Amino acid sequence: MKALLLSLSGLRCKALHHIALGNPRVKFCRQCSAPLEMRIPVGEREWRPVCTACSTVDYANPKLVVGCIVEHEGRLLLCRRAIQPCRGLWTLPAGYLELGEGSAAGAARETWEEAGARVEVLAPYSHFDIPIIGQAYLLFRARLMPPYTHAAGEESLETAMFLPDDIPFDQIAFTSIGVALRHFVADMRSGQYHIHHGVIAKVPGTQPNDPAGFQLVDHFAIATSVGTGVSAQPVPRL
Amino acid sequence: MKALLLSLSGLRCKALHHIALGNPRVKFCRQCSAPLEMRIPVGEREWRPVCTACSTVDYANPKLVVGCIVEHEGRLLLCRRAIQPCRGLWTLPAGYLELGEGSAAGAARETWEEAGARVEVLAPYSHFDIPIIGQAYLLFRARLMPPYTHAAGEESLETAMFLPDDIPFDQIAFTSIGVALRHFVADMRSGQYHIHHGVIAKVPGTQPNDPAGFQLVDHFAIATSVGTGVSAQPVPRL
Repeated sequence: MKALLLSLSGLRCKALHHIALGNPRVKFCRQCSAPLEMRIPVGEREWRPVCTACSTVDYANPKLVVGCIVEHEGRLLLCRRAIQPCRGLWTLPAGYLELGEGSAAGAARETWEEAGARVEVLAPYSHFDIPIIGQAYLLFRARLMPPYTHAAGEESLETAMFLPDDIPFDQIAFTSIGVALRHFVADMRSGQYHIHHGVIAKVPGTQPNDPAGFQLVDHFAIATSVGTGVSAQPVPRL
Repeated sequence: MKALLLSLSGLRCKALHHIALGNPRVKFCRQCSAPLEMRIPVGEREWRPVCTACSTVDYANPKLVVGCIVEHEGRLLLCRRAIQPCRGLWTLPAGYLELGEGSAAGAARETWEEAGARVEVLAPYSHFDIPIIGQAYLLFRARLMPPYTHAAGEESLETAMFLPDDIPFDQIAFTSIGVALRHFVADMRSGQYHIHHGVIAKVPGTQPNDPAGFQLVDHFAIATSVGTGVSAQPVPRL
């Protein structure tokens, strides 16, 4: 396993974490164009970029990445990335949630855009925060819908359906995707699906797909009831 | 019920939705201070604010709001808001997730800041997207920890523990909080806890706490197994 990883080092992702940081080093106010400076705004506890002219605070918050684990006849849909970071490695179809969009709808949209696949979202599966890059990865279980086809979108080199045993775990683009896929395959094999929630604590300076570059902490694995797994409920009137 | 709501109209939230929009009408580039204009960036499909000088795209994405449903001896902890929007109405301790923070840790921090309560997070409970205001509300089940006290923080007028029957459902600040609390009380009563995921589709122009101003759509209610509800799992090696 170690030898294999070393032999694949040419494929390993070269991106640095600061590229993906949600908080770019902002310099000017978006409202009035005056310079920003770091201050603790009135009534707050944190240092934030604040406009030196109009006092507007330039807040930055974590972003939601949404995607699908698409099943069809016992296989899972993966995309090989055509763009950086991690070009050439495999991932699940996923991307930033857009303003005005629900998470499940965003996950289905990304699956269409990156993998040309029509899907029905079945249930939420995992939420992993990655604090060091200011992202939360939210993945849904989904099933492929007619016409049961998939095709590489602009951001993918190719798409493919993998049997669990054939998933290239040593060529997965991102830690969060690898962690979710490993749990999902274990759930497929046991027949007991969980909902996962946790924090991927990356070791600073490691690559996005370094298999030893993180710890999964504050992890909740919640067993879901077989048969009564998913249903919609009206809001209780009480 | 209707009469009661009308009699409380003075307490109903006066905030307009645009106040909470995640996408302020930005005018200038944060990198170079030149004017922005709406364009479809190269390789994208959406109109976004793009710098007329350096072509930096000013992305805006939904924000995560994290909070706790804190239980202690059969009661739930609520805060009465000291700030707008919805000053004077009741809510759960919750607020924006900060950069560099995990969701559960952020929920516990907000509970400390707004309600002076030390808690242990037990499990994720609900994720409700509210696309019209660019927010996703993520609430966790938690239990009060020693010394089992609570006290209003700067953003709260008071804090209180309510028996389920005594929760002031007609004086709850936000739809998302009301929806989650109603489901949670129903789960408490039945002993069958769910994990909820869905979209709160607000009727444009309605107030944040209008009981008829929304629909819960794309709702997944996932029954969790009794007894095996929550555990941490190592990442499967496969």
